[in-house]
Amino acid sequence: MSHSFAASSEHWMIQPIGYIYSPYKQKFGVARQPGLVPAAHAYIDLSAEFTADCVRGLSDYDYIWVQFVFHATVKDGWQPLIRPPKLGGKEKKGVFATRSPHRPNHLGLSLVKLEQIEYGKQIRLHVSGVDLLDQTPVVDIKPYIPFVEAKPDANCSFAHERELLNVYWSQPALEQLALFSLDSNYYQLVNQSLAQDPRPVHQQHADKIFVMHLFDWDVLFQIKNNMVEVVGLRKHV
Amino acid sequence: MSHSFAASSEHWMIQPIGYIYSPYKQKFGVARQPGLVPAAHAYIDLSAEFTADCVRGLSDYDYIWVQFVFHATVKDGWQPLIRPPKLGGKEKKGVFATRSPHRPNHLGLSLVKLEQIEYGKQIRLHVSGVDLLDQTPVVDIKPYIPFVEAKPDANCSFAHERELLNVYWSQPALEQLALFSLDSNYYQLVNQSLAQDPRPVHQQHADKIFVMHLFDWDVLFQIKNNMVEVVGLRKHV
Repeated sequence: MSHSFAASSEHWMIQPIGYIYSPYKQKFGVARQPGLVPAAHAYIDLSAEFTADCVRGLSDYDYIWVQFVFHATVKDGWQPLIRPPKLGGKEKKGVFATRSPHRPNHLGLSLVKLEQIEYGKQIRLHVSGVDLLDQTPVVDIKPYIPFVEAKPDANCSFAHERELLNVYWSQPALEQLALFSLDSNYYQLVNQSLAQDPRPVHQQHADKIFVMHLFDWDVLFQIKNNMVEVVGLRKHV
Repeated sequence: MSHSFAASSEHWMIQPIGYIYSPYKQKFGVARQPGLVPAAHAYIDLSAEFTADCVRGLSDYDYIWVQFVFHATVKDGWQPLIRPPKLGGKEKKGVFATRSPHRPNHLGLSLVKLEQIEYGKQIRLHVSGVDLLDQTPVVDIKPYIPFVEAKPDANCSFAHERELLNVYWSQPALEQLALFSLDSNYYQLVNQSLAQDPRPVHQQHADKIFVMHLFDWDVLFQIKNNMVEVVGLRKHV
């Protein structure tokens, strides 16, 4: 049941101020919230019209808000009720009580760590802890203001940190890691991503081999008894 | 120097999911950040197509993100450099290093306290601590997830809490408060708003009587030696 958005008398056009380039080439495997996979490094390239002036002072901040468009789900419309994966898919929540990508204006919001600003021909913001698909269009960036936005004691129906799975690598997978000259950040990215259990709620079969596309490689893995085994790596085609 | 936004090949239409109704009838006097004026109660009426299903589970959260459009400044375009009022107007910061309303896509983001949900013919969300102009169009609502979004130790170039001014009421102003049957929330709203010093950076003349339009009344006040005097109240015409 998907909905389009009834016409309203008021509307505005929004456009990308830039795009994010991230290791996540497909929805499967994307961290379910920002910050859960610190090894998920990415960068945002601002469009040429946004010069160094536009980010003056931003490097004083540790975290930035990225407002973006869930571009991969725009065509699907939106749904009033969602089954959040954190709740095991058993309970339905309203779209405005979730961070589901299937929402009326397809606007997303992620808090990411600002690692560095590169002042080249165009402005590049290096960030980490992203939960964003590669080539996501960014529509705004704002500094994080802790005395206004940090409410550590706020009630929240989310289960706190989900229990992490243990991840181990098969011998062939470790050999492929070396063969492809993948660095320790890639190793951490795989470990942190798989520890979150990226399986969809309705596909939690043991024995099944899942494939997660990270950068230019496919990571093959299997989950049994809450243990993840990285079975192998191969070049994505 | 105001800029319009160069055409991009990608763009999206966004529409209000509802509107906020707040005491702030004009920009002058609006709290400069959410949460600074807890007595600023407001409500968001969702459009009829967003039924109770859409907010199922939202009442488990203390805080919600309101994504909105700075509708009053859309016509002004955007500016690469801003003089934030917190810095006394002396220093310029980049638009993406501020929460200025004069930004490329005119998108705003406020964390507000969710007080109550009213399930009537349309869904009404009662909120507090708002920094939003009356009739601001809301384009999304999301729950606040503290274990992802509360970073109390994050660096931030903002001065922490600005020093609050002392507020006192003249005898005529107190009599008008009674005459107009204004309740203690209105009294608190005036006190909390004025304690923040709403004067624009370049108009800090002593002696000048400022007028702030809150709900249906004009609040007249004067600031001398960091003391605010509420001089009088009158019906706004």
